[in-house]
This record gives sequence, C-alpha cells and structure tokens, in this order.
Amino acid sequence: MGLVVQKYGGSSVADAEGIKRVAKRIVEAKKNGHQVVVVVSAMGDTTDELIDLAEQVSPMPAGREFDMLLTAGERISMALLAMAIKNLGHEAQSFTGSQAGVITDSVHNKARIIDVTPGRIRTALDEGNIAIVAGFQGVSQDKKDITTLGRGGSDTTAVALAAALDAEVCEIYTDVDGVFTADPRVVKKAKKIDWISFEDMLELAASGSKVLLHRCVEYARRYNIPIHVRSSFSGLQGTWVSNEPLSDAKDQKVEQAIISGVAHDTSEAKITVVGVPDKPGEAAAIFRAVADAEINIDMIVQNVSAASTGLTDISFTLPKAEGRKAIDALEKAKASIGFDSLRYDDQIGKISLVGAGMKTNPGVTADFFRALSDAGVNIELISTSEIRISVVTRADDVNEAVRAVHTAFGLDSDSDEAVVYGGTGR
Amino acid sequence: MGLVVQKYGGSSVADAEGIKRVAKRIVEAKKNGHQVVVVVSAMGDTTDELIDLAEQVSPMPAGREFDMLLTAGERISMALLAMAIKNLGHEAQSFTGSQAGVITDSVHNKARIIDVTPGRIRTALDEGNIAIVAGFQGVSQDKKDITTLGRGGSDTTAVALAAALDAEVCEIYTDVDGVFTADPRVVKKAKKIDWISFEDMLELAASGSKVLLHRCVEYARRYNIPIHVRSSFSGLQGTWVSNEPLSDAKDQKVEQAIISGVAHDTSEAKITVVGVPDKPGEAAAIFRAVADAEINIDMIVQNVSAASTGLTDISFTLPKAEGRKAIDALEKAKASIGFDSLRYDDQIGKISLVGAGMKTNPGVTADFFRALSDAGVNIELISTSEIRISVVTRADDVNEAVRAVHTAFGLDSDSDEAVVYGGTGR
Repeated sequence: MGLVVQKYGGSSVADAEGIKRVAKRIVEAKKNGHQVVVVVSAMGDTTDELIDLAEQVSPMPAGREFDMLLTAGERISMALLAMAIKNLGHEAQSFTGSQAGVITDSVHNKARIIDVTPGRIRTALDEGNIAIVAGFQGVSQDKKDITTLGRGGSDTTAVALAAALDAEVCEIYTDVDGVFTADPRVVKKAKKIDWISFEDMLELAASGSKVLLHRCVEYARRYNIPIHVRSSFSGLQGTWVSNEPLSDAKDQKVEQAIISGVAHDTSEAKITVVGVPDKPGEAAAIFRAVADAEINIDMIVQNVSAASTGLTDISFTLPKAEGRKAIDALEKAKASIGFDSLRYDDQIGKISLVGAGMKTNPGVTADFFRALSDAGVNIELISTSEIRISVVTRADDVNEAVRAVHTAFGLDSDSDEAVVYGGTGR
Repeated sequence: MGLVVQKYGGSSVADAEGIKRVAKRIVEAKKNGHQVVVVVSAMGDTTDELIDLAEQVSPMPAGREFDMLLTAGERISMALLAMAIKNLGHEAQSFTGSQAGVITDSVHNKARIIDVTPGRIRTALDEGNIAIVAGFQGVSQDKKDITTLGRGGSDTTAVALAAALDAEVCEIYTDVDGVFTADPRVVKKAKKIDWISFEDMLELAASGSKVLLHRCVEYARRYNIPIHVRSSFSGLQGTWVSNEPLSDAKDQKVEQAIISGVAHDTSEAKITVVGVPDKPGEAAAIFRAVADAEINIDMIVQNVSAASTGLTDISFTLPKAEGRKAIDALEKAKASIGFDSLRYDDQIGKISLVGAGMKTNPGVTADFFRALSDAGVNIELISTSEIRISVVTRADDVNEAVRAVHTAFGLDSDSDEAVVYGGTGR
C-alpha cells in the first residue's frame, strides 16, 4: 500500500456536512494502509463571494492582492477538513501551497508550477499524519509572493504533488462518476469510460470535455502519474487515465477502444476575415495581431482564393469571451493588413471524435462524415489531428450531431439509466 | 515625517464601504509624508462565522488547525484594503503575519510574540509602498506553523511592528474617540483623556477599561512606543498613551492629572473558601490547586481568623467564565487542603480609581471611601496598588458607585454631550 493523493473539488466540500463526508472517505483510505495526501478546493461559493467583495472595493483588483484574497478560500476549507479528520480520531495537518512547497512563476492569477519541494508534507506523512494541502495556490520563486494557478488549479496541484511524492495514483474526486463517452446531459446513453490513455484524454479535454482540464492531464502524462477520476458521492470505480491500463483496471478486461468518445463545445465563436490579398505574410499579420492581444485561437481554415480577384477568406475559432477583444485588435490592424471586412458568428458548435484507434482504422473519418450527413448536419469547418477529427456546425445542430455520431460508432450504452453530469470546481 | 503604524479593528472594516473609508484615511497619512504600515483585523463578523463553521465540523477544534482557519479572516481584509488603496492610485502590498516576520512561540490560539523581523515590510516601504499587515497572527519559531495571538492580538501586532520598525507612533483606530475618565455608557459626563501615562493606562486596562488591552500597553511601555487611540470615524485627536506628554499633546497644555479615571468590571465572580485551618501552607495549597487548573485570579483577601476556632476564610475574585473550573479544582483538592465549604458569588462588581497622583496625595483613599459611603454603596473587598484602589461591591451598585466616584474626584465634564462607547475588535 503506497501513497495516494486525493483531490476534492468545491462541490464536495460545499458545507460542514460535505466536509464531514469527505473526512470519512479520507480516513477510509488511511485505514486501508495508504499514506494519504489530500488537495482541497475552496468551499462551494466561497471564491465567488470573495470576487464579489474585491469588485466592491476596486474595479480592477491588482493581481498580487487578488491572489492573496482568493487563497483565503482554501485556507478555510483545508483547516476545517483537518479538524473533521482529527474529530474522527486520526491525525491530520493542513498546509498552504507555500508550506507544501508548491513553487510557481510570478504570473498572478494564472501562475505555472515550476517546482514542488514537499519536505514538510513528507515529514507530516512520516509522522503518521494525513496531509491536507490547499489547492490552486503556490508561492512565487523570486518574490515569495502568494500566487494562484488559475482554472483547474487544484487538479494541477494534486497531480504535481503526486509526481513530487511519487504517488501510486492521483484520485480526482468530483460530482460525476468519471469521464463519459459523451456529455450525458446530451447523450442519455453515454457510457462511463473505465480506462482512457493520456493521449485520448488530452484530445477530449481540448475538445470540450470538462471533467479534467488539459493542463492537469498534460502534467500527469509528463510525470506518468495515473489519474483516477471518480465521484465523492459514491463508492464506484471511476475512470482511470494512464499510459497503460493498470492491473486493477485490467482485471475488468479493459482494452483500448478504437474510439474513446465524442466531445462537443459551444463556447467558441468564429471570426472570418473577408477579402484578404492572397500573398505571403497576410495570414501571419492577421494572427500576429490576434496573438498580440493575448487571445488563444483554436481552429484555422483558409479557403482557396478566387482566381478572378486574388482575394481569399480566413476563418478561425476562439473563445466567445475573447471575441470583442479580437475584433478590436483586427479592426485596429485593418489598414496595415489590408482586408475587406470581418464577420463574427457566435452561433457555432464544435463536435470532436477522439480515439487513438483512428490512426490504424482509415474508415473512421468517412464514417464520421456519413453519420453527420445522415443526421442532416451541415459542416462549416474541419480540422484533424492524428487521433481526433473536429467539425464546426451550427450551434443548434450540436446535440443532434453528438447523438448521431455516438450511436454510429457503437458507443451507446445498453442501459437506459440517466447519469447526472456537472462541471468540476477549480 | 517618519514612520507611522496604524491599526484598524474589525468594526472599522466591517464592509466594502468601511474598507474604502479606511483606505482614504491611510492615503491621507501617506500624502502627509509618512511611511505607513497598517495592521488590520478581520472584517466585522468574519471571525465569528469561521468559529461557527469549526464548531459544525468538530466540537473541539485542534489548536493548529483553528489558527489556520481564523487567519483566513485577516487575509481577506488585508488584501481588500490593499486593493482599495491601489484603486486610489497609491502603491500597497499586503503581508501575512508570517511574511511580516511576526515570530511567536508555539502556543496555538494565544501565542506570544518572541521576535519581529520585518525585512519584507522595510523593503516594501523603501520601494514606496504602503504595507498592510494581517493582525492577530504570526508563525511559530520552531515548527513554522501559523499561530494566532488571542484577544487583543491585532493591537499587539501593531505595537510590536512599531517597535521593530522604530515608528514615531502607533495609532490604534477604533469606534470610540479615545480613552475616557470612565465608561461613557455609565457616566454621561465622562471626559476623553488627552494624555495618559503607560503606568496609569496599564492599571485602567487591568481594572476593566476595554479600549486598550493590558498586553498591548505593556509591550508599548517596554519599547517606549507612543500609542494614539482614536476614532476611525472622525478626524479628532484621541488619547495619547506614552511616558511623557508628546510635543503635540503639550501644545494642548496637557498636564498629568492626579486621577486618570474610574474603571469598573462586572465580569468577575468571587469564591470564598470557608473554614480554612489558620496554619502555614494552607493558602499556598489553595492557590496551587487553582493555578494548576490554569485559572487567573485577581484580588485575594484573607480574614483574620477567629481565635475560638483557629479557622479563617479566604476570598478571591476570578473571571466568571472560569468559575466552574475553579470550583471543580478546589472540590477535588478539598480533602488534602482541609476546608469546610466553598461559596460562589457572581453578583459582584469591581470599581477602581487609577492615578499616579495618589502616591503624593494621601487623602485620595479617604475621599474614595467617603464617596462610596455617601452613595450608600457597601464595600466587600479592598485591594490597592501604589497608583490604584479597587473595591468589590454588589453588581447592582456598580453604576451608581462609578458615577459617585467620578463626580467626587472632579472628573465630570461640563458638556452634556453623549458619547457612544463600544468595545474594540481583536
């Protein structure tokens, strides 16, 4: 029995009852002979309440102070969780990100972990304690200021600690049973995936699946830390994410599926730059303007230019929240780039099919397009990787498209049991 | 213009409006050319809410985790205050007790400061920042655990930082205008004291005055840091507490009064140990039993023993909250000590007259007893120091007694203006 890192999100510790429930589960793992390190998020709505307060005193809260403020949230939940565990007769100590040795760069509100030096955690474990660590936070290497890791930060904290402590597994507890072959709110027959490779999970996360964030999976892959995503409300096995199926999972006769799942995303918009002169450097100028505004773009498609005009159109997708900023940046650069006009469309959706099996199954792409066509779904953009095909459609067609593809690839469950599916905290 | 330490209690930063109001006052001091260090308590009811949460998860929260929990309160208020100051166009940085170099012993929930190493604060000031420091908290020297300083902890943090940074003055902002000659809720004609010596302030604090706690005044006296107690709601001069009247205060022609003020305290109870054999070692045995239960006692009186029985009675006063514990400890030791019975009386009050002038004015004691007698107040116990006389009376007589003594010593104000008087936070 080795070392286990468990992470609990805000919905699992939303109130005193939740904290006591989680404490019991942690003690269970300890009783089973594990050394246990727990990473915990802020309780329920605490973070939103703190953000509200910040907005009341300042319209543009400074990064350093905003991080100092937000980290109070985990401080509360971790201390309460340690108390609840001690109340069950087991030793527990809570540690801030700084005390746990989570060293980051100095980019406030979205710092990156650059080192983990968990000396105090190791000592606490060796003395028989359960160690409770604040998720989402660290301390900057140069200035020793408190930092936060941004979205999905607590998951990343858990995986980083698991790597630094050479843990057997990093268990991510959430309010769903695991990773599904599609969003169960859309596809009633979506199945829980027993095992999925890091590679496929990365593609699913990049394509709209919200259970695990890309950044956390990327970290786990780099250090080869198996992740077990599971519900804090049930005792069920969840989804294992790792390089190879683990022995535990093998007992359940898991083999790699051709297709892991269907992801969808309706949080993006499409910008089309119309009438771009078809000459070298034009695309570069456009995306330089967008990148300088610190906007992350997703898919890019350039049409074949019309021979008669020598002009072409370039489309790309980006988060809706950054649409305004991108339009402003492009309008400003319009004269120097030289294009006719901009079109902005936020009524789009993206459907992605993910599976390493498609590398060796050339028919997958054809089957995918056939399923969409049979469902009467029109395709606007296409982009592919070695193990993923994504298309952009009308937003209204997304749910129908996801269901059609899910069925076409034989992913539908035999059971009709409904699954409740929600997002994780940070 | 030198360095000023300002401390704001929880009632001054109870909400976003309060924080913005305090931010303006801090910026004012900075504009006047001071280097400014601010010590802040948790917002309004935050601490009580956190204690509630702790009680929901554990009936006996562990000290280390309880401190970790409570310190979230100052983390929130200090970050918000720094944001509010930056929003006014001035640079500010917040620091936890640990970051500010407040080093304590390891006694959780009531740690004592053993060193202050404010290197980061000094750097922040030298870089032109206003430094905001979390009150009430520190870090333990040996284990590097987060500690809290107990009641009055934020005031003590402020004085300790003022000493370590060699500040000109430590300003304690609260919700009253300063220290008064008596509690204005009881004595309508109580006057604000312009200047009072450390010595007299220590006696007032020990005798029930709640504006400054004994511990903080003691620290200020040891390092000779002038304290200016004043309201965060007005621009008025408050009360200066120092060795000698400052030049500022001298301008106002302040001289040392014979009597500084009248304090009262109804938070104590009286225990009488009846029928104690009048032989050496008996009193020692009684107070050893009480001390071993970690109970602080105040006044002690032993009657002359009755010649006929060789037995005497010993009475002492102690905080009501510790009454039960003291009775239990004495009952347990009854057989070995050898007394008849215990009497417990929580309907008592204490009135104290404080003033260094009584050292050279022998008539003070007589005038004090005369005033009480004229008011028909019966005296049950008497205790004196060089600069204080205290008596215990029935609780019901306390207010009348305080007013009578206040008038008798010419302390009544000519103005009839009512003053609102409240307690400070922690």
